[in-house]
Amino acid sequence: MGNKEPQGKLGVMIVGLGAVATTFITGVLRARKNLSNPIGSLTQYDKIRVTENGEEKYLGYKDIIPLSGLDDLVFGAWDIFSDNAFQSAIKAKVLHPEELKTVENELKSIHPMKAVFDNEYVSRLHGDNVKASSNRWDMANQIREDIRNFRKKTGVSRIVVLWTASTEKYLKPDLKIHGEIEFLENAMKADDRMNISPSMCYAYASIAEGCPFIMGAPNTALDIPAIWKFAEKMSVPVAGKDFKTGQTLVKSGLAPIIAMRCLGLSGWFSTNILGNRDGLVLDEPDNFKSKEISKLSTLETILDPKLQPNLYNDYCHEVKINFYPPRNDNKESWDNIDIFGWMGYPMQIKINFLCRDSILAAPLCLDLVLLIDAAQRAGKSGFQKFLGFFFKSPMYDYTKNEIPDNNLYTQYMSLRKTICEMGGYHLTDHC
Amino acid sequence: MGNKEPQGKLGVMIVGLGAVATTFITGVLRARKNLSNPIGSLTQYDKIRVTENGEEKYLGYKDIIPLSGLDDLVFGAWDIFSDNAFQSAIKAKVLHPEELKTVENELKSIHPMKAVFDNEYVSRLHGDNVKASSNRWDMANQIREDIRNFRKKTGVSRIVVLWTASTEKYLKPDLKIHGEIEFLENAMKADDRMNISPSMCYAYASIAEGCPFIMGAPNTALDIPAIWKFAEKMSVPVAGKDFKTGQTLVKSGLAPIIAMRCLGLSGWFSTNILGNRDGLVLDEPDNFKSKEISKLSTLETILDPKLQPNLYNDYCHEVKINFYPPRNDNKESWDNIDIFGWMGYPMQIKINFLCRDSILAAPLCLDLVLLIDAAQRAGKSGFQKFLGFFFKSPMYDYTKNEIPDNNLYTQYMSLRKTICEMGGYHLTDHC
Amino acid sequence: MGNKEPQGKLGVMIVGLGAVATTFITGVLRARKNLSNPIGSLTQYDKIRVTENGEEKYLGYKDIIPLSGLDDLVFGAWDIFSDNAFQSAIKAKVLHPEELKTVENELKSIHPMKAVFDNEYVSRLHGDNVKASSNRWDMANQIREDIRNFRKKTGVSRIVVLWTASTEKYLKPDLKIHGEIEFLENAMKADDRMNISPSMCYAYASIAEGCPFIMGAPNTALDIPAIWKFAEKMSVPVAGKDFKTGQTLVKSGLAPIIAMRCLGLSGWFSTNILGNRDGLVLDEPDNFKSKEISKLSTLETILDPKLQPNLYNDYCHEVKINFYPPRNDNKESWDNIDIFGWMGYPMQIKINFLCRDSILAAPLCLDLVLLIDAAQRAGKSGFQKFLGFFFKSPMYDYTKNEIPDNNLYTQYMSLRKTICEMGGYHLTDHC
Amino acid sequence: MGNKEPQGKLGVMIVGLGAVATTFITGVLRARKNLSNPIGSLTQYDKIRVTENGEEKYLGYKDIIPLSGLDDLVFGAWDIFSDNAFQSAIKAKVLHPEELKTVENELKSIHPMKAVFDNEYVSRLHGDNVKASSNRWDMANQIREDIRNFRKKTGVSRIVVLWTASTEKYLKPDLKIHGEIEFLENAMKADDRMNISPSMCYAYASIAEGCPFIMGAPNTALDIPAIWKFAEKMSVPVAGKDFKTGQTLVKSGLAPIIAMRCLGLSGWFSTNILGNRDGLVLDEPDNFKSKEISKLSTLETILDPKLQPNLYNDYCHEVKINFYPPRNDNKESWDNIDIFGWMGYPMQIKINFLCRDSILAAPLCLDLVLLIDAAQRAGKSGFQKFLGFFFKSPMYDYTKNEIPDNNLYTQYMSLRKTICEMGGYHLTDHC
Repeated sequence: MGNKEPQGKLGVMIVGLGAVATTFITGVLRARKNLSNPIGSLTQYDKIRVTENGEEKYLGYKDIIPLSGLDDLVFGAWDIFSDNAFQSAIKAKVLHPEELKTVENELKSIHPMKAVFDNEYVSRLHGDNVKASSNRWDMANQIREDIRNFRKKTGVSRIVVLWTASTEKYLKPDLKIHGEIEFLENAMKADDRMNISPSMCYAYASIAEGCPFIMGAPNTALDIPAIWKFAEKMSVPVAGKDFKTGQTLVKSGLAPIIAMRCLGLSGWFSTNILGNRDGLVLDEPDNFKSKEISKLSTLETILDPKLQPNLYNDYCHEVKINFYPPRNDNKESWDNIDIFGWMGYPMQIKINFLCRDSILAAPLCLDLVLLIDAAQRAGKSGFQKFLGFFFKSPMYDYTKNEIPDNNLYTQYMSLRKTICEMGGYHLTDHC
Repeated sequence: MGNKEPQGKLGVMIVGLGAVATTFITGVLRARKNLSNPIGSLTQYDKIRVTENGEEKYLGYKDIIPLSGLDDLVFGAWDIFSDNAFQSAIKAKVLHPEELKTVENELKSIHPMKAVFDNEYVSRLHGDNVKASSNRWDMANQIREDIRNFRKKTGVSRIVVLWTASTEKYLKPDLKIHGEIEFLENAMKADDRMNISPSMCYAYASIAEGCPFIMGAPNTALDIPAIWKFAEKMSVPVAGKDFKTGQTLVKSGLAPIIAMRCLGLSGWFSTNILGNRDGLVLDEPDNFKSKEISKLSTLETILDPKLQPNLYNDYCHEVKINFYPPRNDNKESWDNIDIFGWMGYPMQIKINFLCRDSILAAPLCLDLVLLIDAAQRAGKSGFQKFLGFFFKSPMYDYTKNEIPDNNLYTQYMSLRKTICEMGGYHLTDHC
Repeated sequence: MGNKEPQGKLGVMIVGLGAVATTFITGVLRARKNLSNPIGSLTQYDKIRVTENGEEKYLGYKDIIPLSGLDDLVFGAWDIFSDNAFQSAIKAKVLHPEELKTVENELKSIHPMKAVFDNEYVSRLHGDNVKASSNRWDMANQIREDIRNFRKKTGVSRIVVLWTASTEKYLKPDLKIHGEIEFLENAMKADDRMNISPSMCYAYASIAEGCPFIMGAPNTALDIPAIWKFAEKMSVPVAGKDFKTGQTLVKSGLAPIIAMRCLGLSGWFSTNILGNRDGLVLDEPDNFKSKEISKLSTLETILDPKLQPNLYNDYCHEVKINFYPPRNDNKESWDNIDIFGWMGYPMQIKINFLCRDSILAAPLCLDLVLLIDAAQRAGKSGFQKFLGFFFKSPMYDYTKNEIPDNNLYTQYMSLRKTICEMGGYHLTDHC
Repeated sequence: MGNKEPQGKLGVMIVGLGAVATTFITGVLRARKNLSNPIGSLTQYDKIRVTENGEEKYLGYKDIIPLSGLDDLVFGAWDIFSDNAFQSAIKAKVLHPEELKTVENELKSIHPMKAVFDNEYVSRLHGDNVKASSNRWDMANQIREDIRNFRKKTGVSRIVVLWTASTEKYLKPDLKIHGEIEFLENAMKADDRMNISPSMCYAYASIAEGCPFIMGAPNTALDIPAIWKFAEKMSVPVAGKDFKTGQTLVKSGLAPIIAMRCLGLSGWFSTNILGNRDGLVLDEPDNFKSKEISKLSTLETILDPKLQPNLYNDYCHEVKINFYPPRNDNKESWDNIDIFGWMGYPMQIKINFLCRDSILAAPLCLDLVLLIDAAQRAGKSGFQKFLGFFFKSPMYDYTKNEIPDNNLYTQYMSLRKTICEMGGYHLTDHC
């Protein structure tokens, strides 16, 4: 409804041409050739039961709202390393080299532009494909120019900017700096490096150019009123933060079981081993803090001590991430959950998830790019709650005492309801 | 709304005074004395967000519909062993003896009536507290008389009959025998032991006496049109089957995560070790078959190959139960789940649930007894879909191509929606 | 000492050209080309600390006793399917196709001879590359002829016969039939199919031709005095049974920890999922019985109730194998171990082994072939206790109340001591 | 042989009257009354096969060497908290209160003497049962006086001092301070707090009084030549360090399986959750370092990269300990082990050990006390290698390039061989 049909190509400009980005791109390129399936993508697979003319039927998302097709995507990227997408994908060791070779030429044609970067925010990485810049405002302007050049060069009609780069060190939002657009712009111009992260420059630049921005890492770039207001003013939707992939995906699905059954919780211990660049960056305590805050928040609103003080008071929730090189991208999580039931008797659940970071993140990239573009065409702007399903830390307005929804099931319902509304359909699923 | 306030005491007549029943009773008795909490019970803990006079608030179930209180319950039982509830609880080794001693007198006063029993249906158990009976019709009549006597003796105003006894060998429903009330009655009178299980006699007798019946085991006693029609005719609600406690509880909560994320499934292997009487009975292949059919059905409607042939075609789903005496009632499950994602890459999830059979089942007993009684007072009859949340194999009308709902989340929504409807409230939860 | 240097080539005739055999062969062929390493092989990697002229040093097995080199092996095979080794390896899905292609020609040149087979013993497999035979004696004679032809055709100087084919249904040894050579020969001639398995025919034929025989499956072909006596008479060493690969390998290493620490055991539950042909065959209860007996025996002599009645009395030991096709050859085991310590307090150990059947079996094939050949050259005959390290059910003379050694560590010491003795060295390792 | 019969009572003076100590004492007291069994104790259960007069038989340790009986032990303690043993045991929540009550009087009679303590070494604990002292030399002298008083008061003929107190922060041995007795004494007199830990004062005092000293924590008090020389000079045996209880026990038993099978290792990730006082202390990085160094050393000598560079080069070994209060003393470990086999194919082993810290440590206390006393009577002095079986970091002379033995099996052999030698028997076990 009011959702305009996509015209022309859709540019996807990715910050960070690493494991996630190259896996996403390769999967799209191979799907175009029918060489592999974009499994895990809701825009490509999920079906919604709707009623049309009194008849029940299942429709895919594309049948409900106009979405760009896989053939319509045109990729660009920034990275602090100069490897092209093929070289980067080989080094990432996520996908079999034979599979990469089937789209070798396409991948090799994607050369990353120089990135804006500040080693203070990601101390473990040292790349040389970095722009010189005089201050944060200059950083943002250079990115804006990159976006305009990309648009010109490729002829795409719309662009989405997607952050798949590293976790920055924790930057706590401060309303005096991040509360209003002018405050933010002033701090950028004053080169306030303490309070302006490079990812904020990308977000600002993207919105300034009218491009939706997606934050896949736990960086707080989008978690500030200045950005929300700017996005609304520019009619740009934004979404974040931190792709919900492995452990937190399962946690946000399992915790509701405990809550629904009114079982008590005394502790939840979560540990992770991973060996990719993400693991290397998070081995630094400052950067881990961003991730930890994001991961810990999951349980709070599902197992709520205020609502159920006899069940969820004072439970111990620990999240650890360990850099363990033998695993590369094949991260693994182990959870121990201590619950109690009837008459207080204790029980335990252990979950061991042998997953793959980029394999789980890639379909989220595709879905978020397609859906945020559709949202923009449908006239939506500011942060998009209906996309919370895809994130560890869904956005919410903390200045208004809003409570974030971390329950995977209600997130899913919210996503589908919004899609139906955008398409003018009525969701008739079970609940 | 039309839901009558409960008057007088509520009789709870339990078939099988074993581990589950004595844990349920002990927990209720101790809760009355504020010695322990009925954790895991939705009627005692869960809260629903409703809007009243434009104001949002959270209400417990008791605030929405009239429910009997814990003080109103009066317990009776049948069992093939003559141990009283205290002796049986000690032997079950579920609860600490010191806890049992705090309600020793109350437990000792519960002596099981003689049960109707057929060794052909439960070959591993040999009890001597068994009624002599000439045929299945006589069995049902003797139970009816027990119910009438219990009502007279205790003065309860209403009675619910709850099956917590053993799993019988698999009895496949046959519409020629189980399709109509008369067929069923004729088969009982003709003593058709092949097609009439003892549990059917309990269900029939219970309904005939106007008492709701709950089937906690995977027995098919309630899965037949004759019983549905009889229940409707007698204005009696029934609910089953097979309490959703350990592994299947987690499975019905975890499988939707896979489905919601459009990840593929190639296999799900589930094994269990348990050492209680349940484990002993299920060590017999004929009896295990009842359980297996019940447990296997869980995934079919959540991960549906017809709706998603590329994701859920031909997956291998295996469920095993192993009798392992060292564990007693502390059953444990181990699941290995083989999923695949983007471009078909495989991943694995393992779940190890160290649970307690009776601890998980007891709060379901309490909730089902209170809710089915409320349903009867609200005028409901026949099988109750809204109670499917509590069962591994929720009832549905398979003669009309209905599809059962196995998704824990939609079951939960359905439960709460019905409770709100019964109470005249509008559910305003997230979705 | 007295161990003759190997002269000429060593023929390796393998019964069953399936996953294990083709993985073994491929690994040897690739190692010859320096394309991969024969990891897991003691003959290629293990070192023994010895003292020579007062000086301590570490020697490989090849430096202690004369062993054939990888270049000296010449492969032949029997199978009920006519696929050559390349085709079979591709179907087995154990090794990456690219790796197989590097030795494609060599693999393609290995065509299996027709096998002798009896569907009664392996009911789940149906192959057509099977010899016609009039009786068991004729079966053995045809195999003998195959061996003689192979020797002639290839010019090898010595031959070892290695069973890597399927598990047969359980055949309980009966001294009246299997106690003496003549009894056995008579039963073969009388075509006593009940008591003479096809694998016995292979073992008999192999010994008759002077070739050592290795039983990699749990078949009882070698567990009979008739074969031991025949082997001694013919100066042929034999070894078995049942390669110790995944779960039992860990079990035979972990159980001694419990024993050494004098901790008690109340139960050990072992389950397995595997999807290869082995899993298919063992899905048949008759065949599983052979495996179960073999696997259950492991604990008996390590955690001995006679020696430690307070610690190891009446523990529950269960072993399950489940056919689970999604896994192919990548079998996985899960063990739950219930132990108790100081004052009887219970503790639990869980082990989850994600292993690969053929990857673990292949180096055992190599070691057994090389070591049994060396043993023969050193003048050893009959069953070889020092090779017990490699087997789930090491051979022992049950007619003389011998006790088998299942402890991995003492097996390892025994292996190394014998090798040192054969080589004239004195083992100076720690103990 | 030459091992003198024990005369009189044996005093056991324990530093740290916490969970381990009270569990040890309670188990001994209850065993005296036949109320529970000292399971896990080799001195009470293990049997050795010996040959006497040409006959094989199994003998317990007590039949081979003279050992004090459980009735001969007299307990004393120091602690920074003034709780008596009963109060401390109740707070530790290791044993059921009903069990403690059966020896309540005996436990209540054990009042801890004031401890010497330095908050710099254990920053998370704050006790007030602490001696005032002017310097380290004074500390040692006060402890010596306590020992002499205890001897006088109780009339015991011999005393062993056992450290079960907290892990101190890491103190790296420095030969200039810890290399000679005089250096050490001078540093104590000079009150060199940086280089003299409180546990060194206990060790020094104990040896000065002629009492064997056992270090159950990872403190380096015994890991210095000054102490070795002093112990030899005073004819006192000492043993340490760090009781081998949960994860490391399994690790030191499992790693040899990998080594014996010549499988490769790419990584071993070990994590732990525990909630007792030990967990609290180790939550401090300085203290964890002591533990980490101790735990990491286990693999080095079992999976030796110098001996097997193709198998054990550059593997990643991580050990984590997490303070997780819901677990109290019931610590739990999770290990992920990445191995590789034939042709380099990877496999994984996961171990989840639900253990109990004090239940595993208590029998080690008993065995070490009895065996070190026997060693002293047999004339042994200095550090005792044969007791390495009980420790995570067995002692060895690192100034002489000795290599520690971490292999549980060879440690076990060494223990039993020494016991046989002390008793004049010849060990005839398998290897």
